Amino acid sequence: MNIQIPRGTQDILPGESEIWQFIETKAQEVCRRYNFREIRTPIFEHTELFTRTVGDTTDIVQKEMYTFKDRGDRNLTLRPEGTASVARAYVQHKIHGWATQPNKLYYYGPMFRYERPQSGRMRQFVQFGVEAMGSADPAIDAEVLALVMDIYKEVGITNTKLVLNSLGDKESREAHRQALIDHFKPSIHEFCSDCQMRLEKNPLRILDCKKDRDNPLMKTAPSILDYLNEESRQYFEQVKAHLDQIGLPYVIDPTLVRGLDYYYHTAFEVMAEGEGFGAITTLCGGGRYDGLVEEVGGPSTPGIGFAFSIERLIMALKAENLVKEAEPSIDCYLVALGDEAKNKSVELLYQLRQAGISADKDYLDKKMKGQFKTADRLNARFTAVLGENELADNSIVIKNMQTGEQVSQPLTDFIQYIKKEIEGGQVR
Amino acid sequence: MNIQIPRGTQDILPGESEIWQFIETKAQEVCRRYNFREIRTPIFEHTELFTRTVGDTTDIVQKEMYTFKDRGDRNLTLRPEGTASVARAYVQHKIHGWATQPNKLYYYGPMFRYERPQSGRMRQFVQFGVEAMGSADPAIDAEVLALVMDIYKEVGITNTKLVLNSLGDKESREAHRQALIDHFKPSIHEFCSDCQMRLEKNPLRILDCKKDRDNPLMKTAPSILDYLNEESRQYFEQVKAHLDQIGLPYVIDPTLVRGLDYYYHTAFEVMAEGEGFGAITTLCGGGRYDGLVEEVGGPSTPGIGFAFSIERLIMALKAENLVKEAEPSIDCYLVALGDEAKNKSVELLYQLRQAGISADKDYLDKKMKGQFKTADRLNARFTAVLGENELADNSIVIKNMQTGEQVSQPLTDFIQYIKKEIEGGQVR
Repeated sequence: MNIQIPRGTQDILPGESEIWQFIETKAQEVCRRYNFREIRTPIFEHTELFTRTVGDTTDIVQKEMYTFKDRGDRNLTLRPEGTASVARAYVQHKIHGWATQPNKLYYYGPMFRYERPQSGRMRQFVQFGVEAMGSADPAIDAEVLALVMDIYKEVGITNTKLVLNSLGDKESREAHRQALIDHFKPSIHEFCSDCQMRLEKNPLRILDCKKDRDNPLMKTAPSILDYLNEESRQYFEQVKAHLDQIGLPYVIDPTLVRGLDYYYHTAFEVMAEGEGFGAITTLCGGGRYDGLVEEVGGPSTPGIGFAFSIERLIMALKAENLVKEAEPSIDCYLVALGDEAKNKSVELLYQLRQAGISADKDYLDKKMKGQFKTADRLNARFTAVLGENELADNSIVIKNMQTGEQVSQPLTDFIQYIKKEIEGGQVR
Repeated sequence: MNIQIPRGTQDILPGESEIWQFIETKAQEVCRRYNFREIRTPIFEHTELFTRTVGDTTDIVQKEMYTFKDRGDRNLTLRPEGTASVARAYVQHKIHGWATQPNKLYYYGPMFRYERPQSGRMRQFVQFGVEAMGSADPAIDAEVLALVMDIYKEVGITNTKLVLNSLGDKESREAHRQALIDHFKPSIHEFCSDCQMRLEKNPLRILDCKKDRDNPLMKTAPSILDYLNEESRQYFEQVKAHLDQIGLPYVIDPTLVRGLDYYYHTAFEVMAEGEGFGAITTLCGGGRYDGLVEEVGGPSTPGIGFAFSIERLIMALKAENLVKEAEPSIDCYLVALGDEAKNKSVELLYQLRQAGISADKDYLDKKMKGQFKTADRLNARFTAVLGENELADNSIVIKNMQTGEQVSQPLTDFIQYIKKEIEGGQVR
């Protein structure tokens, strides 16, 4: 009986995996320019880390976590997101005490949420994210926004929209919170039970509810922007001024909220606007936070970060025909005829690879025609043919598969010849 | 209260993560040359996949798996190794039917085994591995061995030893199996209970036992090499001949076994011989197998592969002082004095990064001295100083931090100047 892949997960096969590598390389390169450095944390953490930081009223903690006991009876959870682990590592390794501040970190890896699988939403998905910790300068907000937009630019996606909001500071949020309660309370019975629970606990999260999104009270809800105190208003103005200064376009959306208590000031999303992308439009979410590091035992630390899913980015790229499956490709395929030539080709193959050339040969005892067919399928740039005649006079026949041109070369010059052709070709 | 990282796992911080990136880049590059392409499989699989392929008498399945039920009551396990998942994907996506054969795949990612954590042995560890599936040509055995040794060479480790053995085909193994039973049976009561269980089920695995490793009967146990039939002997001779041909040194060790039923013919390990590495000496293990793909529902498929842990490779590299923690490093640090200059530096910083230059600035409102100190700590190659005077005459002062040389440049030429210096510098 066949064993299938677990529901909500996927294999990434050759052809597709090159797209992932491409994105990873680009993201790494942009982070280098912005002086963000990589941190890697474990796939699982003590469950408490997430109940405490993500919050026990959230869908993630209540419904979506992969939680289990290990053989030592520890309560562990596959990480549903990356920020909590970075904060835990930040405290555990006293990164807040490092000589250079702020700390600009990025992470990349699989996350896990038990949700109903659908297009663009998997139970295992890969997130790239950054956290800039230790500064409350509005200029670093602009830097983080520029970074994510640069990554999207580098991978080639252009139809994106940066959506911005401010959640204000504690005082502003408290005023807004009270206004939200006043707004929803009289009609809270029209809302789902989750929202009814949220009303007193965290009314901001009502605005995030998927079930009640069409209730008319959602549209008329008081806007946080009308409740920002002077300091918060100024902070937001500075962030916007920096974005204007560097020429990064954005739109303001006062309904953009992030429901956790830690979030304050800057909140943002990046939306995909490309045609054919359908319902899924949010590529990336992020914002400024405080109190998170304290929650895991560290000092009060302002931070700002974002995360985006690679699966969704690839969907957006594909919707705009900006990437396609990678074809196989090699520099040189060796065609060998007869046992002696086959034997000799093991050696030549090794020498080609030692010279940095990507090369391959037949391993299925195919006839000449079959070997050429494989060379074709692998999109070999050159095919080198070694038969009895060639072996007898120590030569090899090299065919340029693009031009059809064919030359005979002494076997001793073979590697150098291919190397020169390939390297010349790369410069052209 | 602080939340700690789960036991047996680790964070990889900036400085260390660059070492990982270096190894990943090198391994990817060698795979490109050998025409191996990446496959990615999920972090967890249905538990049955491992009980069936890894085998339910193994320590892995009996004692070391992270197994749990998801919210849909599926029995899942964090993958303890990579080959089973690759075989599962190979069948599920009918890779055996692809036009180009054999399929040469590599994988990279975290694996999980609940073991007692110790130096070089973590509960979460990262494996790189390859599987060449669909050919039983001895030349591909040599190719796979050459590939792993090339990766080690590329990352810079030289004190390695390739240890080789043959487990023979089914007939040879059966003869050897009987000889092993005859050898151990009279004294099996001297052995551990695991070994007593193994005697009839899988006596080969007795040779692998850590507890009984010093029993004198281990040394005198019949060697598989004395039981190889003609075909198996010839296969082994051909593998060795190919290795001799390409000049890859190896030693034969007839006690090197792999305990699973699938393994046959070629088995190998790569050992680290560097000083200061202590007890842990095996870097990599691999071998030829058959029957594995059938076990997960596919056609009979010969394959050969290996896997090695990155943690252990890094230990070996460090033991030989071949890698060290990466220092921070950027091309240009902007020092700004006064509010106007600080504001302007946001723009310059963005432009530098758009030009591909890694750059940073102060986000903590530090004085000039503090900003220069940060530039130093970041090992900036250039520091650019923007003060009131410079702003007034639209210039900027650029200091080469290696030579101490200092020049003033028009602000309009600044980015081009740095770009030229950096790119010129990289060529030097």
